[in-house]
Amino acid sequence: MKTIRVEEIANYAGQEVAVRGWVYNRTDKGKLVFLLVRDGSGFVQCVAFKGDLSEALFEQIVRLPQESSVIVSGLVREDKRAPGIPGGYEIGVRDLQIVQAAAEDYPMALKEHGPDFALDHRHLWIRMPSQWAILRVRATVIAAIREWFDTHGFLNVDAPILTPAACEGTTTLFETEYFDEGKAYLTQSGQLYNEANIMAFGKVYCFGPTFRAEKSKTRRHLTEFWMVEPEIAFCDLDQLMEIEEQFVTHIVRRVLRDRGPELRSLGRDLSKLENIAPPFPRISYDEAAKKLQELYEAETDPEKKELLKFEWGIDFGSPHETALTNLYDKPLFVYGYPTAVKAFYMEPWPGRPEVCKSVDLLAPEGYGEIIGGSERMSSYDLLLQRIHEHGLPEEAFKWYLDLRKYGSVPHSGFGMGVERTVAWLCGIEHIREAIPYPRTIKRVYP
Amino acid sequence: MKTIRVEEIANYAGQEVAVRGWVYNRTDKGKLVFLLVRDGSGFVQCVAFKGDLSEALFEQIVRLPQESSVIVSGLVREDKRAPGIPGGYEIGVRDLQIVQAAAEDYPMALKEHGPDFALDHRHLWIRMPSQWAILRVRATVIAAIREWFDTHGFLNVDAPILTPAACEGTTTLFETEYFDEGKAYLTQSGQLYNEANIMAFGKVYCFGPTFRAEKSKTRRHLTEFWMVEPEIAFCDLDQLMEIEEQFVTHIVRRVLRDRGPELRSLGRDLSKLENIAPPFPRISYDEAAKKLQELYEAETDPEKKELLKFEWGIDFGSPHETALTNLYDKPLFVYGYPTAVKAFYMEPWPGRPEVCKSVDLLAPEGYGEIIGGSERMSSYDLLLQRIHEHGLPEEAFKWYLDLRKYGSVPHSGFGMGVERTVAWLCGIEHIREAIPYPRTIKRVYP
Repeated sequence: MKTIRVEEIANYAGQEVAVRGWVYNRTDKGKLVFLLVRDGSGFVQCVAFKGDLSEALFEQIVRLPQESSVIVSGLVREDKRAPGIPGGYEIGVRDLQIVQAAAEDYPMALKEHGPDFALDHRHLWIRMPSQWAILRVRATVIAAIREWFDTHGFLNVDAPILTPAACEGTTTLFETEYFDEGKAYLTQSGQLYNEANIMAFGKVYCFGPTFRAEKSKTRRHLTEFWMVEPEIAFCDLDQLMEIEEQFVTHIVRRVLRDRGPELRSLGRDLSKLENIAPPFPRISYDEAAKKLQELYEAETDPEKKELLKFEWGIDFGSPHETALTNLYDKPLFVYGYPTAVKAFYMEPWPGRPEVCKSVDLLAPEGYGEIIGGSERMSSYDLLLQRIHEHGLPEEAFKWYLDLRKYGSVPHSGFGMGVERTVAWLCGIEHIREAIPYPRTIKRVYP
Repeated sequence: MKTIRVEEIANYAGQEVAVRGWVYNRTDKGKLVFLLVRDGSGFVQCVAFKGDLSEALFEQIVRLPQESSVIVSGLVREDKRAPGIPGGYEIGVRDLQIVQAAAEDYPMALKEHGPDFALDHRHLWIRMPSQWAILRVRATVIAAIREWFDTHGFLNVDAPILTPAACEGTTTLFETEYFDEGKAYLTQSGQLYNEANIMAFGKVYCFGPTFRAEKSKTRRHLTEFWMVEPEIAFCDLDQLMEIEEQFVTHIVRRVLRDRGPELRSLGRDLSKLENIAPPFPRISYDEAAKKLQELYEAETDPEKKELLKFEWGIDFGSPHETALTNLYDKPLFVYGYPTAVKAFYMEPWPGRPEVCKSVDLLAPEGYGEIIGGSERMSSYDLLLQRIHEHGLPEEAFKWYLDLRKYGSVPHSGFGMGVERTVAWLCGIEHIREAIPYPRTIKRVYP
């Protein structure tokens, strides 16, 4: 008999198969027992009828605790009402082998749990359908990211995690003793390395964990998160936006193609995602500031009005991003931010040094910034001047300055946070559910 | 005119194209100047003939410093003798635009450099053909790893980098202050998390940087390296070895298919890699011990003899691995190591508790261990006993013990180091060249 994966059950209607997995739920109806069995690839209803089985086995099944590991075999039947993911098929049980009867005190039984309890039991929480679905979407997002870059001439070049003498101050960096070399710091971004790498490889991306020791306690912040950062030689801001919209659209389409059952099980409105296609709207920071002023003036609720307060020169807060993106049904580019609120290495806007060639991509439905990018400074003199203005140690940037000395070229790049993207695609509130083992300022367990 | 990538030049013979890149080398022959131009995807010879160009431009070209960034346009000609990677084509220069003339003091000029100097200039060293080729192979190894798992039912589930209270002693762990939660440690392996994840997803892999604060100073050790770790529910040791040989063969074939020019440019003997196919030879530790004893007795050189000294119960050293793998022309499985030299969580051999169900895969040609794996313990009681025997804190392993309490299943997994695999495939001496920015006990820069 063939052992199958639940996700491919539609191919086995009318056949006898075996499924190896865990009992997620059990409902007893006299002579019938309904087991919802999960095997990692999906959830399937298995129907045990007393008349089909030995008395001893049926008695065992009736008492089977949640999370017991089993090998179920039987006939696959199509039944549109059958619950499960993908659902629509059930297995009429012919035999069942108990690998291990689970202990009766399973802590993540089928009820609501507070967030702290659930996070303390993250190693078990991931077995629940919602968390399982989100992390399956996450894996597809990661595969789609790599697929797009790998098929568009980008080379994956990993940036180091342990980095030398902190460049932009150490307050938001995790630090560690590094043998006799003093301290090393956990990376916040691979971008500076990317800029060296494009001079060797043309177009590159790094993709790995990054770290922020910030005391931010919001639903959009983690201390450890995954970021993909591409960088492109001979690329300006307009070309960068084109790349971003093609890239993001690819991710959305791949997730829609491969993870429909998971998204539906999360209650996601797929029509909102099906709508994502290039071109994405592009507005300047100046235009955004004008729109925010209009929204502020039109707002009648004093509390909301207060949150919308805005003046040219400040960075957007979450209420501003939400208000702006609510005007559109696609991701929104905002470009040309004030130089003062962005990093030191961004190319100035020609003729307007107070503005830089930066662009953020804001997700729809209030999910906020998912990508931050810019054209980078290519002039040695200007970069050196900027390093001095920011009070940064020139010595630590010597290698970075070399890149403007030996074959400088116009170049651009961006960084996309995986968890924020997954949260948007899944339509979930808090990004801590978009990573297997979330790390926040209060949590480094399990 | 079309801007092309050098790696696709064979498609443009007879056409006028533009290439954007950097001057890697320049040879002047009177009225002819040969420029070796690299664009990140390859190296191509560009021939500037004085008669074809304005006098001013030709004079500029004659003086063009190494690493100047340029846009070269001209006619693609097939010429088997033309140097480059892939080589065999050259461009007859019609026009050349200098984006930036590089400073004259380029530190990585075309000569041999000592390892420390080269590593200090890693951001420039990667522009040289050998390093460029190795890191291109690395990217393909990474893509092949993910391709194999993604098409064989494995889900990518990331393990955390920051981990709680160190489990196996802290001497080889990097540590960092973690807000008010005490210390956190940089992960050495995602395996324990993988074991939780298979109970939710069936087959998983994690793939990210891992850390060892070991004071090992060998050509096979880095303090930061990338490791891929798959884990499989309902899988025993024999099935694990089958997976490993399929997996490794896939990587080798993909690299041969996509990175032939790079491997040839490194002088790699491709026939050695073309030979890799399942099945791989499998010997037990007991058999290996016997073979080593025979080799020891046959050795006449006293120095070599001393290095081959071996007794049952110890782990293999590098000379032992090399001696064993020299007996085969494929990777070699050695299984059933002594329990005492392996981790606490490995399943004991039935009837022989002094041996465990572990298996290492040793690369040919003396490249040593590239994979370590095992069947994991599935019994709660035995695991708890082993945790006590090893003096480990039970509390820290509570979540890990849960996995044997709620639906335990037989399961196995392994870890493969990316840099060791790349070093083997490229045929290079030292794994520090197999990662973009190597971290060793003496180096955390640039």
